[in-house]
Amino acid sequence: MEKIVIHEVGLRDGLQMERQTVPLEQKEQWLTTLIESGVDIIQLGSFVHPGKVPQMADTDLLFREFSGRPRGSVVFSGLVLNEKGLERGLACGVELFCMGVSASETHSKKNTGMTVAEATSRIIAIALEAQKAGKTVQVSVQSAFGCGYEGPVPQKNVIRIVERYLEAGLTTISLADTAGHATPDRVERIFGTIKRMSDDITCACHFHNTYGLGLANTYAAVRAGVVFIESSVGGLGGCPFTKIAGGNVCTEDLVHMLQQMCQRKDIDLSKLLSCAGAISTYFARELPGTVYRTGSIARPEAVA
Amino acid sequence: MEKIVIHEVGLRDGLQMERQTVPLEQKEQWLTTLIESGVDIIQLGSFVHPGKVPQMADTDLLFREFSGRPRGSVVFSGLVLNEKGLERGLACGVELFCMGVSASETHSKKNTGMTVAEATSRIIAIALEAQKAGKTVQVSVQSAFGCGYEGPVPQKNVIRIVERYLEAGLTTISLADTAGHATPDRVERIFGTIKRMSDDITCACHFHNTYGLGLANTYAAVRAGVVFIESSVGGLGGCPFTKIAGGNVCTEDLVHMLQQMCQRKDIDLSKLLSCAGAISTYFARELPGTVYRTGSIARPEAVA
Repeated sequence: MEKIVIHEVGLRDGLQMERQTVPLEQKEQWLTTLIESGVDIIQLGSFVHPGKVPQMADTDLLFREFSGRPRGSVVFSGLVLNEKGLERGLACGVELFCMGVSASETHSKKNTGMTVAEATSRIIAIALEAQKAGKTVQVSVQSAFGCGYEGPVPQKNVIRIVERYLEAGLTTISLADTAGHATPDRVERIFGTIKRMSDDITCACHFHNTYGLGLANTYAAVRAGVVFIESSVGGLGGCPFTKIAGGNVCTEDLVHMLQQMCQRKDIDLSKLLSCAGAISTYFARELPGTVYRTGSIARPEAVA
Repeated sequence: MEKIVIHEVGLRDGLQMERQTVPLEQKEQWLTTLIESGVDIIQLGSFVHPGKVPQMADTDLLFREFSGRPRGSVVFSGLVLNEKGLERGLACGVELFCMGVSASETHSKKNTGMTVAEATSRIIAIALEAQKAGKTVQVSVQSAFGCGYEGPVPQKNVIRIVERYLEAGLTTISLADTAGHATPDRVERIFGTIKRMSDDITCACHFHNTYGLGLANTYAAVRAGVVFIESSVGGLGGCPFTKIAGGNVCTEDLVHMLQQMCQRKDIDLSKLLSCAGAISTYFARELPGTVYRTGSIARPEAVA
């Protein structure tokens, strides 16, 4: 099993789902704890118009403030949706640029006003621009396993976008299960197919736990050779199409699982648990995560 | 993928964890809905001393009452712990007898006052007795992946018990993750090993969702060729060693996953969801299950 890379996205995909806007000082505290935990990549926010998603209005500030601080080897990622976002991200110190298109025509039209093909061309242009500026880029396919508007999304539609990314020389590719429709068998199958499309490809995954399948899908992805896993502290965030958001795959539950599988023992699980606890206290509600409530397995040594 | 067999254990492993004793008429209602759902096996209760577990005091009555009713092809199972339990089970119409030993010496001593080796001899004798009476038997290894008292349980201790079962001609064997310590990699490994021990073996699994890994472990078990899955409506029950019981693998979440994987579309998911909803209302709390709250995926047709 290759070393799994944890990409924490709670400050973006989690907080953007919250009604309550979290003040900058509070984000700073959580971010500090997340950095201390030793996760590999942390997404600080998205570059979306502050009028549209006020929760993300201070993304640039957060980057500026933390970019200069000592912070070990953690990489800061940001989500950009358009050219303006790229400009903002380049100006404030984003290291890993994340961007993507939806594999569902309806989802694409609703989010961007463009067809999937048009949106793909535009995202590829922005991604190449970021690469030209010396940045790392991860491109994604959203609604890769099903769509809240359209229902099932044929695998060939996803593969067509992946082909276009590869043709453009974009080789770090994430599949996002925006609506939470993925099942582990399909996860194994599609990542198997994609891995065979190129030797250079690095696969990432982003699962929502809407129907309780987040970790099962993650395990299936790991089995298929996916190395970058996006997850969210406390299991914040989740599917925008259901009333009851099941959350993202929960970072500390994922790290707990990996550590029980003798992986990533270098990550400080206790920091993640305390961060989830602090977020739960802040929002005064139970989060979807499990281990921050049960505690970790008392004697985590693996058994032969 | 072989046809998965659903063994519903909520009325036993779920209700025995509840402080509140559920009256017989209420159990009857839930059982009726579970039968209507078309799950394959339903565990009606355990044959334990009513002074010890009052929640199971009416197990014999429930068997007597439902054994004669028209009920399709569903099989009724009961858990027996000793000779007295076998006697009661034979008298009231149990079809599938479930019984087991713990792979952890401490757990075994606390539960039975016997060493693992002694408990195994005794359970084998009871199992053979049940077979002699023409009954089907499933034997299990509890704490097969870790113990709430001892921590890690070496795989060889589990295998030693499985060997003894096989030597006695007992070939339907369940591994129970009593403390919720299993991880999908170990699940695949140990069931792979066990499947290779005999061509006649039928493997069953019983996972607790204490650390959120229930469905991931179930998927791993299915991958390794496990066909019988024990689960609990609403995700009732769970690990007795933690303050916050994460519940059993949730039946309706499992069936939802399988149906999304084009399996067991014959099961009426809506009946399971309504049963979970009714149980949640009865106990006036949210259950661990997910899909009874989110609803199932709107268009569940699988995609090529």
